[in-house]
Amino acid sequence: MGLRTADEYRASLRDGRTLWYRGKRVDDILAEPDLRVAVDNAAVDFEMTHDDAHRGLAVATDPVTGAEYHALYALPGSPDDLLRRSRLIEIGSLLCGTILSVKDVGSDALLGLLSVLEGPGLERARAYFTRVAAEDLVLAVAQTDVKGDRAKAPHEQPDPDHYLRIVHETADGIVVRGAKAHTTFGANCDEFLVLPTRAMKDDDAPWAVSFAVPANTRGLSLYISSYSSGEHHPWDRPISSRHKMLETLTVFDDVFVPWEHVFLARDTRLAGPLALAFVDFHRFTAVSYKLPLLDALVGAAAEIARMNGVVTAGHIREKLTQLVIYAETVRSLTESAARRGKQDSRGICRPDSMTTNLAKYTFATGFHDAIRIVQECAGGLLVTGPGGEDWDAPEVRPVLEKYFKASAPAADRLAMMKMIADLTVGDFGGYQSVLAVHAEGSIEAEKMQILREYDGARATRRARWLARLDEHPE
Amino acid sequence: MGLRTADEYRASLRDGRTLWYRGKRVDDILAEPDLRVAVDNAAVDFEMTHDDAHRGLAVATDPVTGAEYHALYALPGSPDDLLRRSRLIEIGSLLCGTILSVKDVGSDALLGLLSVLEGPGLERARAYFTRVAAEDLVLAVAQTDVKGDRAKAPHEQPDPDHYLRIVHETADGIVVRGAKAHTTFGANCDEFLVLPTRAMKDDDAPWAVSFAVPANTRGLSLYISSYSSGEHHPWDRPISSRHKMLETLTVFDDVFVPWEHVFLARDTRLAGPLALAFVDFHRFTAVSYKLPLLDALVGAAAEIARMNGVVTAGHIREKLTQLVIYAETVRSLTESAARRGKQDSRGICRPDSMTTNLAKYTFATGFHDAIRIVQECAGGLLVTGPGGEDWDAPEVRPVLEKYFKASAPAADRLAMMKMIADLTVGDFGGYQSVLAVHAEGSIEAEKMQILREYDGARATRRARWLARLDEHPE
Amino acid sequence: MGLRTADEYRASLRDGRTLWYRGKRVDDILAEPDLRVAVDNAAVDFEMTHDDAHRGLAVATDPVTGAEYHALYALPGSPDDLLRRSRLIEIGSLLCGTILSVKDVGSDALLGLLSVLEGPGLERARAYFTRVAAEDLVLAVAQTDVKGDRAKAPHEQPDPDHYLRIVHETADGIVVRGAKAHTTFGANCDEFLVLPTRAMKDDDAPWAVSFAVPANTRGLSLYISSYSSGEHHPWDRPISSRHKMLETLTVFDDVFVPWEHVFLARDTRLAGPLALAFVDFHRFTAVSYKLPLLDALVGAAAEIARMNGVVTAGHIREKLTQLVIYAETVRSLTESAARRGKQDSRGICRPDSMTTNLAKYTFATGFHDAIRIVQECAGGLLVTGPGGEDWDAPEVRPVLEKYFKASAPAADRLAMMKMIADLTVGDFGGYQSVLAVHAEGSIEAEKMQILREYDGARATRRARWLARLDEHPE
Amino acid sequence: MGLRTADEYRASLRDGRTLWYRGKRVDDILAEPDLRVAVDNAAVDFEMTHDDAHRGLAVATDPVTGAEYHALYALPGSPDDLLRRSRLIEIGSLLCGTILSVKDVGSDALLGLLSVLEGPGLERARAYFTRVAAEDLVLAVAQTDVKGDRAKAPHEQPDPDHYLRIVHETADGIVVRGAKAHTTFGANCDEFLVLPTRAMKDDDAPWAVSFAVPANTRGLSLYISSYSSGEHHPWDRPISSRHKMLETLTVFDDVFVPWEHVFLARDTRLAGPLALAFVDFHRFTAVSYKLPLLDALVGAAAEIARMNGVVTAGHIREKLTQLVIYAETVRSLTESAARRGKQDSRGICRPDSMTTNLAKYTFATGFHDAIRIVQECAGGLLVTGPGGEDWDAPEVRPVLEKYFKASAPAADRLAMMKMIADLTVGDFGGYQSVLAVHAEGSIEAEKMQILREYDGARATRRARWLARLDEHPE
Repeated sequence: MGLRTADEYRASLRDGRTLWYRGKRVDDILAEPDLRVAVDNAAVDFEMTHDDAHRGLAVATDPVTGAEYHALYALPGSPDDLLRRSRLIEIGSLLCGTILSVKDVGSDALLGLLSVLEGPGLERARAYFTRVAAEDLVLAVAQTDVKGDRAKAPHEQPDPDHYLRIVHETADGIVVRGAKAHTTFGANCDEFLVLPTRAMKDDDAPWAVSFAVPANTRGLSLYISSYSSGEHHPWDRPISSRHKMLETLTVFDDVFVPWEHVFLARDTRLAGPLALAFVDFHRFTAVSYKLPLLDALVGAAAEIARMNGVVTAGHIREKLTQLVIYAETVRSLTESAARRGKQDSRGICRPDSMTTNLAKYTFATGFHDAIRIVQECAGGLLVTGPGGEDWDAPEVRPVLEKYFKASAPAADRLAMMKMIADLTVGDFGGYQSVLAVHAEGSIEAEKMQILREYDGARATRRARWLARLDEHPE
Repeated sequence: MGLRTADEYRASLRDGRTLWYRGKRVDDILAEPDLRVAVDNAAVDFEMTHDDAHRGLAVATDPVTGAEYHALYALPGSPDDLLRRSRLIEIGSLLCGTILSVKDVGSDALLGLLSVLEGPGLERARAYFTRVAAEDLVLAVAQTDVKGDRAKAPHEQPDPDHYLRIVHETADGIVVRGAKAHTTFGANCDEFLVLPTRAMKDDDAPWAVSFAVPANTRGLSLYISSYSSGEHHPWDRPISSRHKMLETLTVFDDVFVPWEHVFLARDTRLAGPLALAFVDFHRFTAVSYKLPLLDALVGAAAEIARMNGVVTAGHIREKLTQLVIYAETVRSLTESAARRGKQDSRGICRPDSMTTNLAKYTFATGFHDAIRIVQECAGGLLVTGPGGEDWDAPEVRPVLEKYFKASAPAADRLAMMKMIADLTVGDFGGYQSVLAVHAEGSIEAEKMQILREYDGARATRRARWLARLDEHPE
Repeated sequence: MGLRTADEYRASLRDGRTLWYRGKRVDDILAEPDLRVAVDNAAVDFEMTHDDAHRGLAVATDPVTGAEYHALYALPGSPDDLLRRSRLIEIGSLLCGTILSVKDVGSDALLGLLSVLEGPGLERARAYFTRVAAEDLVLAVAQTDVKGDRAKAPHEQPDPDHYLRIVHETADGIVVRGAKAHTTFGANCDEFLVLPTRAMKDDDAPWAVSFAVPANTRGLSLYISSYSSGEHHPWDRPISSRHKMLETLTVFDDVFVPWEHVFLARDTRLAGPLALAFVDFHRFTAVSYKLPLLDALVGAAAEIARMNGVVTAGHIREKLTQLVIYAETVRSLTESAARRGKQDSRGICRPDSMTTNLAKYTFATGFHDAIRIVQECAGGLLVTGPGGEDWDAPEVRPVLEKYFKASAPAADRLAMMKMIADLTVGDFGGYQSVLAVHAEGSIEAEKMQILREYDGARATRRARWLARLDEHPE
Repeated sequence: MGLRTADEYRASLRDGRTLWYRGKRVDDILAEPDLRVAVDNAAVDFEMTHDDAHRGLAVATDPVTGAEYHALYALPGSPDDLLRRSRLIEIGSLLCGTILSVKDVGSDALLGLLSVLEGPGLERARAYFTRVAAEDLVLAVAQTDVKGDRAKAPHEQPDPDHYLRIVHETADGIVVRGAKAHTTFGANCDEFLVLPTRAMKDDDAPWAVSFAVPANTRGLSLYISSYSSGEHHPWDRPISSRHKMLETLTVFDDVFVPWEHVFLARDTRLAGPLALAFVDFHRFTAVSYKLPLLDALVGAAAEIARMNGVVTAGHIREKLTQLVIYAETVRSLTESAARRGKQDSRGICRPDSMTTNLAKYTFATGFHDAIRIVQECAGGLLVTGPGGEDWDAPEVRPVLEKYFKASAPAADRLAMMKMIADLTVGDFGGYQSVLAVHAEGSIEAEKMQILREYDGARATRRARWLARLDEHPE
């Protein structure tokens, strides 16, 4: 117990879980090079708690017992706590090459559970939370159902398994069936935390379910996405050759869950609030972990423009300004979401929902345009340039050094070019662009939430006063 | 001394100042209906300090003497002070029908002087500041020179008077000549505070000048803009028939200024910093006072959509969401600019320049589109509907009541329609749209300032680390 | 008969019609200065047919009888005819100061009638069309009903008069009641042509009605909008002091229409197609008559930038480029709409609906942003500068000439500034901005029509072929 | 001679040219799987001329000799010829999976040479053009120099080889040195046609050079970009596993060119016009060959929305409308560019430069946003879904079939999803996005050309007339 090391984490993954990758069963995730990259990237989160440079941020101490646990598993009680949490997520993302660090999502889900649940479910969730923190576990959050016909509610689906559901219930626990799509960290977590994906009506009771199970639970099969499979030369992909996330199609084939780990069962009333509470914390995490990505876009555009020798051109300055405006608006809105956070009656400070969604929306709708600008600054060499094997070849490198020198040596310029290519073209770039519009909720979901959470009373009052329809402006 | 009443303020304007309006000399500003509207609007600022509903916000008390003065003349020492200042400016703007209240700009300029000046200039500015607060004066800030050929520095202008300049200097003071364009409150202030409009080079010494003079100073002529002259039916223009600002072309024809009121003379080094310090405070004021305007746009769009009976249509909800995103992004950035403010060595807390400009830029570039959305929600009736004289006519009103009823009575719907028309079409709407892009600095100036103030080191470091060009990410 | 002179047109307006303006009955439209401006502007259309510079474009000749009539009343049979029609509308708009010339709308409606009607209605419409051309009449098109509750169909309205309807029918004709909103040229037309405003269902039969009546018909009352009333100094408003359109609330209080002039009665099936056919021609007219306005924005921005001395600045060139892109995209799409026009079985060539709506949409959604750019190029003087009375005053003008000189004399610069102010701020500017989003159909209506008329088969086929779901790409 | 078959084309590539790929020499381009894909894709252009479905479009016949040649090598003499050329390029692109067909660029360059050259250079170019058509050759156009320091002219570069240059000249020909970057079809062309990349000044004479050489010329080395190397499962990449272009760094190491193939040598005056003439034809080609890509985006979004079961949702309809507007605006502007084409004195009809650049600019600036919309319609499965090996595995496929069924069977839905992934994420998607902003000229270059080619006289005249500064409007 206590803070595990990276190697302890790695070892724990050899637990017999049912993994499928590229059409085959995988016995040892550590032995498969593609998957090993993701495990090693996830290990960063454990290294941070043992590294003096990051311990201060990453480790929390129980004031009573003195026990240390990961700071993501500390309950935020104030806006300042949220700012610290945001900073930790930001640094974790930086060290993970601009992607989520492995405990982010699970901690968001736990905060959601603790904010919304009631009665025995809440008791179990609190106990579970304590154990996760004490044992320093990694959770994958399985929320998004495969959904089948989007126009129909769970109970209306032709195939009832298109939303995960309780098929059976006993004195000891429940049996569930169904599948969750794109579960991040599904292959390399310790346990799965399952949440409902949407608000539900009375008829949807069997689908209103939340629970936790270990990754090697019988009946649980993990189909890892093969997106971006294959090894890549580190010179070509300086980020993604070292940093990677795995998503799974997570199939529950009559999986048994003991009551101890069932947090919600058939209580349709709480399905929506639980989904939403997770989402508020998770979108706040989203905009926090995107900050290094945004910084990288600004910095990359400025550096490559300098290396190309065009940094003082008027149109380049305009482009850099647009990138700064984009990145800093997201950063400022993220800060505001924390500062406007309010403590609930259970002592948990939730980031302001409207502002969080505003930050996320601003990030998501501006990302593709930002990519365009960075690509404009970099040049066509992003997709027509030499590769790592060329650079390594003694007969080729001198040619590249001569002809790709500009206002910086070819080595530096091509290194920056490759980083930009990794971020904006190729598998990892495409991954980032789809994450921008779909991960942690779609743009449409964010807009709905902004309008729902917006307090329109002040605006209406002021408009009516100016129209001389009301007496008082405030 | 102390807080003046609105009537004391009004009376003080009858001081023999040289006013021109619509081609003629004006002897009594209070007797000219167009101008009287602006004076009465300015009086709101005085009423606030005598009105229990607003005294708490609008009045500051000297902790030593117990003397009361206008809270805009309290030095902000912390982010919280800036938030309070922002709130005061916001409420003042609301009561003034979405425009500046009359002491805003002067207080910005005073804060600029106290932040930047040195030596005797600083001493004089401090004494002046004390007197302005004690006597509860209204200052107009004359900054923007008429500029002549924009491609040339002041000393290169064919007509040297195209930037205001020192033409003569004596033991008692200086004599200045030139003209300042669009001086807000130029007609109804107590005194003019003159600032340089830009950074200057050594050769521009005679143009590096800052001072204060009373409005009735000999040689000072005030040509009031005739924009939006003429009386208007209050039903047609529910805001602008009661709320108005006056701008002047402010001509200094060899005006003498005693040294006591000269803050800067020939010190080109401080011209730029002084212009900029004012601008930072003033743009913070700008985004604060625009908040009621933005609320009014959101509220008006929602109300008129409701009254038209279309508020639940999908495209209307999309439009309202876009307005909310716009308004709330500006509000959030304004808050951030305050919260990130830093106290300087003189104890003055200046709003963060980058964030302030980001807020202002967001406001300025989004305004016209927001107007478009509001107009889309309202309908063509904005410019094809009946007028106040129609509404007043007993033979016509029943026709209007019958045919302009929708999901609200015609009276309410037309009142809201007229308010929107006042804000978005007609003289006042056009005024608002030009203010959005030019007042308190142009969009280009804001972009330059964003890029200049942006701390790019973090971005560059992160980009280079991700490109494997640097060892450490932070 | 034949082509009337401007004075004949003016004289014909003294026909006893029931006009209301600013709450009062108007006996002689020519005697009311505000209204006279609009009449004189409308007279331009008559002057064109008698002016050698424009006769070639504006006059058509009957190949059989040799009779001359207005070219807008010639049936377009080919894309080239549509291009000529577009050119005529463009020149008319230029001469009318960027607004519609007076026969445009009526001719669009007549083309709509001839395209869609059937049986006796078509016969009557053809006879009516022949008479309108022969007598050189001006028609106002009364289409948009006041609509009441937008969520309800005509027959569901609490007040059945909220859509114009047949209240009674006899052997001689029909009796109609209701009101049409914002009828352009309603005050100064010869006759009204009434069209249904939307598609209708079976229950809406009494509301499916189209007919024509003279302006002085008993029971017809015309309430002229007072928007932008009052005289204005021509120096301040160089365009709108000479060019103006009038809109009316057009009230039919049990108006009798003989069958001869009834084109549609109770045939709900044709209501939608008739509305749409008019709209296609009318939106094509819209984008044609907007071209001089767009040219004026580009030219004005370039001229004022030159006069201000900033035309070579990088950001100004960027702004001008954006304006050119906007204006030329609309122009090119308008051309395409004509060139893609197809002749129907009746020999009438209708502009391509998808392309017409694309042009209109591009115009409408880009207008406010274009205004912003023009205002950015012009400067704050748009709303803070001197007025015509200042310019006329011998004591004031020299001051203005000295201080508003820049890279052009003050006289030229202020003239251009006033033109820009007239187009973009003040009543006329606001009028233009609301027309952009509402006249000739809303942006939402244009989007719906684009999607409806888009031929998606090619796109689907190509996508499926690329996805290897279909065998053949074309 | 005459139209070659695809196999003749393939065989001709085994000519001993110096190819480098992934750090190694390649002896036989047909034996290297990655490269073979590109060769087979290029062969489509030859198949079209032997396929009855496309011969009518792809084959031209000499009216005198009756000889057949590729229609891209027919001189366009009229707008209709340009429309046909556009259609041919469009269909070629469709068959090549949305990318250039192999003779497009060369034909653009030849048209550029014939439009601009003079004297002996023109004679040689005409002879060369005749031979290329007669022998049905494929040309790669080597234009973009590696450029070194972008702020310096060719003769100012620290390394004079950073622009390709004449190092020596004899009675027989010239010797050239330097390198051209991202030469499309550089690996699988028959010959290289070299063009200057920019306008030049007198001092740049050695760099003002244009000529042709066979691909196997001594001293010419072709470094093929390794971008997107490696084989991919066709199920995962339905387009790019079959369609590919190769770019080379094309190094001229003292290559000798006989005078017969030298088109420009040291004539700096023609360098700029030659670069520009090529660019006009080439950007017209660009917008023509992008049309199937744009159709595919619209069609893919509509199909996947249908298969996901969300096609009737309001926000999806809005997104589809935005895609249609984008695609159809580019298509319409491309048509306009052709229709506005003018024949020059040599009988060549050049597409209108302003309109061509407008089309290209509209395409380039809207592409990333369009990708965002398509990704929004598709969902996160784009990057988290199963791969071809999963689909092929008998134990896995049933799971996928069960859980990825929605409003279409999983097989269809995943096929469409993979096509969208191929177009918008992964190597090919990234390639498309960089091509959008850099191929055939940058967005900045297009904007400059729009402003340069825009005829501002009409706009200025109309603006000045409306401002009452000029007498006549036209």
